[in-house]
Amino acid sequence: MKVLVIGAAGMIGRKLIERLARDGALGGRRIEALAATDIVAPSPGPAPFAIATEACDIAAPYVAPKLIAGRPDVIFLLASIVSGEAEADFEKGYAINLDGTRNIFEAIRREQALAGGSYRPRIVFTSSIAVFGAPFPEAIDDEYFLTPLTSYGTQKAILELLIADYSRRGFFDGVGIRLPTITVRPGAPNKAASGFFSSIMREPLAGKEAILPVGDQVMHWHASPRSAIGFLIHAATMETGPLGARRSLTMPGVAATVAEQIEALRTIAGDAAVARIRRQPDPAIERIVSGWPRKFDAARAKSLGFRAEGTFFDILGAYVEDENVRPGA
Amino acid sequence: MKVLVIGAAGMIGRKLIERLARDGALGGRRIEALAATDIVAPSPGPAPFAIATEACDIAAPYVAPKLIAGRPDVIFLLASIVSGEAEADFEKGYAINLDGTRNIFEAIRREQALAGGSYRPRIVFTSSIAVFGAPFPEAIDDEYFLTPLTSYGTQKAILELLIADYSRRGFFDGVGIRLPTITVRPGAPNKAASGFFSSIMREPLAGKEAILPVGDQVMHWHASPRSAIGFLIHAATMETGPLGARRSLTMPGVAATVAEQIEALRTIAGDAAVARIRRQPDPAIERIVSGWPRKFDAARAKSLGFRAEGTFFDILGAYVEDENVRPGA
Repeated sequence: MKVLVIGAAGMIGRKLIERLARDGALGGRRIEALAATDIVAPSPGPAPFAIATEACDIAAPYVAPKLIAGRPDVIFLLASIVSGEAEADFEKGYAINLDGTRNIFEAIRREQALAGGSYRPRIVFTSSIAVFGAPFPEAIDDEYFLTPLTSYGTQKAILELLIADYSRRGFFDGVGIRLPTITVRPGAPNKAASGFFSSIMREPLAGKEAILPVGDQVMHWHASPRSAIGFLIHAATMETGPLGARRSLTMPGVAATVAEQIEALRTIAGDAAVARIRRQPDPAIERIVSGWPRKFDAARAKSLGFRAEGTFFDILGAYVEDENVRPGA
Repeated sequence: MKVLVIGAAGMIGRKLIERLARDGALGGRRIEALAATDIVAPSPGPAPFAIATEACDIAAPYVAPKLIAGRPDVIFLLASIVSGEAEADFEKGYAINLDGTRNIFEAIRREQALAGGSYRPRIVFTSSIAVFGAPFPEAIDDEYFLTPLTSYGTQKAILELLIADYSRRGFFDGVGIRLPTITVRPGAPNKAASGFFSSIMREPLAGKEAILPVGDQVMHWHASPRSAIGFLIHAATMETGPLGARRSLTMPGVAATVAEQIEALRTIAGDAAVARIRRQPDPAIERIVSGWPRKFDAARAKSLGFRAEGTFFDILGAYVEDENVRPGA
């Protein structure tokens, strides 16, 4: 089978390709070739199949037909600019996040016509809990309405609607997965408002100080990178019949307070690590975070076989294992 | 003030312009000029203000900037191809219903930039209960999620999301109103699957036979054309502050069974009129109708001042009055 990963240079894209390279197969079918693309050329590691990499901009209309011409069986759509950038640059956000992905959908529809109807790939799209906006119920269930409060969330919500319609019409077989905040993100601290959820774990484990800009009782919705990759693989291989017309799913995760995160860190790395968290309240970040969803009832995804960690301790354990961290070192 | 009506040749557009001509004003401000456009040139009646009419296709990218160049204060967006056509012609549906209206949004955003930020019109967009798809709860409330089961409903739902985002960003001040099925539609019977809800009232009142393709217990969600125009006027003039980020509203209406419709007809026009309804079950129409919403709890719109009829008898009474029907004649 042939796999296409769009947005392959990001953290999730890299980890997905690592996992596919390790498995050599997807849903029991051997992978023969993988195409990896992003705005910068991805540089994946070794794999038991051919990997073609290319830098390209999906907002450019000529790109999508070229990417789809090879008729990949499974297409992972991970490419988007982040929330802050989509907010700062309205045109760029719509051009890349909405129209870039819609270009891919249209290229698939045209390729299906060229193939006399026989081409109908599986699409896996990473949506976001940013499709939801405050005010929220205590836990957001599978029938809560989409009320994005950012352009990024709006673009994701629109793509969810398009995936449902293109799938219903038979142009492709699409699944949208709304990822929790991915914690613990490896690598350097980033500027995202949500960055502290990872950095207050990652930096103390590395013997470095981290700043906590919000109160300990702030609750948030997390899953590990390992779970995120598991979601993508499951979405690429699951039976889609039971999805019916509702093609996008809130992924399971862990609702944890900052206090619970800190206790998990204490258990794994001791008081010395916890002491590296410096409390420095930031009203701007507190205000942003107060508008975010805290907790979901992801019953539908769980019943369809999506699995996440059960506690934040498990999430931190996955980080320590997957990134070869030596706590207390 | 200047008003632009896009989709002015349809039943709602014509009745809206009649009402504006009668009032001569909108929200207490005198109307100085009205531009009326549609895919065919509208032919409105006399008015106390200048009316410019033009046939144009909003799917053509050069059209929107021209329509917006005059900086209308209020823009009614009524143009779309109907559900059946959007289902039969995927490309045409997206080109007109989605991209055509998005072209208008973008033209407004650019006109605002040209005006140094001072141009920010009120937008009133007619959405549809087709944004909802089965399975439904008993009554659909204001927080029920959008799950369209048609391309038409998908296009409307996407525009609702765009209206919320463009309004949040301050490009315009938008309100989306989800109209009930408009009953009784005047004029000739049409091919829409929902057409019988009107024709079983209109035709017997005109001394003609009408076919009822579904059972008497089928329940549906109705409002009169008069109420629909009232919704448009209210959406154009209301304070939008209380809408917050949730810019689209399910309009109030009447949940009536076919049996209740028939009893209203009997009260107004007697048994002889009722006898002109011929029962001829059509499994195809029964199946389509079974997927439609039946009843809403439109609490939010009501609390914001939108008003509809209280019973189906009132709806039929509005038809008899507004269309100068003489029951039993």
